[in-house]
Amino acid sequence: MKHEELDEALDSFGDALASATRVTPGNALRPEDIAVGGVKPSEEVAQYALTLGDDALILAQRMSHWISRAPELEEDVALGNIALDVLGHARSFLTYAGLAWDKTEDDLAYWREEEEFTSLWIVEQPNGHFGVTIVRQLIVSIFQNLLYKQLTESKDETLAAISAKAVKEVDYHRDHAIQWTIRLGQGTEESAAKMRHALEILWPYVDEMFRDEEVHQNLEGIAVLPSTLRSAWEEEITAVLDAAGLEIPSTGQAMAYGRRGEHSEHLGYLLAEMQVLARKHPGASW
Amino acid sequence: MKHEELDEALDSFGDALASATRVTPGNALRPEDIAVGGVKPSEEVAQYALTLGDDALILAQRMSHWISRAPELEEDVALGNIALDVLGHARSFLTYAGLAWDKTEDDLAYWREEEEFTSLWIVEQPNGHFGVTIVRQLIVSIFQNLLYKQLTESKDETLAAISAKAVKEVDYHRDHAIQWTIRLGQGTEESAAKMRHALEILWPYVDEMFRDEEVHQNLEGIAVLPSTLRSAWEEEITAVLDAAGLEIPSTGQAMAYGRRGEHSEHLGYLLAEMQVLARKHPGASW
Repeated sequence: MKHEELDEALDSFGDALASATRVTPGNALRPEDIAVGGVKPSEEVAQYALTLGDDALILAQRMSHWISRAPELEEDVALGNIALDVLGHARSFLTYAGLAWDKTEDDLAYWREEEEFTSLWIVEQPNGHFGVTIVRQLIVSIFQNLLYKQLTESKDETLAAISAKAVKEVDYHRDHAIQWTIRLGQGTEESAAKMRHALEILWPYVDEMFRDEEVHQNLEGIAVLPSTLRSAWEEEITAVLDAAGLEIPSTGQAMAYGRRGEHSEHLGYLLAEMQVLARKHPGASW
Repeated sequence: MKHEELDEALDSFGDALASATRVTPGNALRPEDIAVGGVKPSEEVAQYALTLGDDALILAQRMSHWISRAPELEEDVALGNIALDVLGHARSFLTYAGLAWDKTEDDLAYWREEEEFTSLWIVEQPNGHFGVTIVRQLIVSIFQNLLYKQLTESKDETLAAISAKAVKEVDYHRDHAIQWTIRLGQGTEESAAKMRHALEILWPYVDEMFRDEEVHQNLEGIAVLPSTLRSAWEEEITAVLDAAGLEIPSTGQAMAYGRRGEHSEHLGYLLAEMQVLARKHPGASW
């Protein structure tokens, strides 16, 4: 292959690289589209988009850890796909938020400090054993499914479009978590015990998901008030736990204020690992 | 949601779970299809399929590590997709090989000892810095692209079908590696120095890729003799390095005999991490 041919070859896969992230069929809005053609959000909308993006980003980091460690090869692939879906949602929300401050998704992901992250505590909790990861997926994906569904009717068209894309994927994540919850809850005695343990570990972070903060209250018709999702969420998760032979545990609730930048001890370690490479080469091409 | 409704809902996503691994469009043959409808390979063909599967499996493990550590969020997604593609190839080849011995892909991935793995040394080498990972991808994906293209003409129809699926994906992996090699080789002085370093680290494992072993020689018309791919591979990689302002280093070659189960010190650690969960719960549902 001569130089000219290689140049041509490279040109010819300019297109291939544009779709390097292999958008799931039916996904209308990519981070690239938002960055190029997006409307600049107001400060309030950007703050809200940031909370949505941070939840997804931290969850994606946690989920991706399973890719080489799931109990079955098929599950490796499934969890990997879920992690990449969620990372895609993070990229869209962060790209949109960044437009308000002339920042890129990478600026927001790699160059903020711990206290600037607005994610919920539940997404930063350690993966624990496989059952803990599945219970977290159950809790969060049912929540996100209701949230994104509602957000498709937001008066903010970009948030509505990102959510319309995300909800299709989260719907699958939710099915996946339900299937595993039932399989493990009704599996061996050991697997059921581990699921009960997982519920006890994670339930303290449920209240935070549904707490209305200023960031929501400022945006009537644009943001979804999390408190309004609670009864539907409880009905759904109760039915699943019921079918799995499991129960909602009676645990206290953590004093979790992730939306205000107050985090558990786990986020710092997660960010250190996530941010190290980008920070080692500031401004370099990699 | 009542019990019956939930049961119905679960039934209804039996289909969704069957495609949980989200086969890339155009992929004709899934591990599930091979397991159910596949022809049983001969002992020799199974041994050959095992070498192909092991290369892909170990490479996928290495690549998946980057998912939360790439220098850009977009790259996270790209590397994650590549890892999942390659894991898909591993699953297909291992499923096919396993049919000869009544073993599943999981049996072969999680329950073999280090000396039973037949993968090449280059795929088990540590990721190193980002440049090392890209150079390994360059070396391996050009090789796999030529190999799988050739294998589509194998007299073994299953190997031909798996390769026809794999080659489309590897073609993209190759483009991705070429693009990054040129970007980094012609980037900053630091990035070019790192690429030279990466080439020096990995070049000693090139010879092994092209060594014909008994496993190939026994299967005329079915297996591809690796030695026959060498000149095309050299021509292609030389052109890329040329365009990147890089050179083939003059390093010695490692005494690498991965095909015979002799591995470098790195495979043991990789397997320990990969196999721990499955082995902790033998026979359990997870």
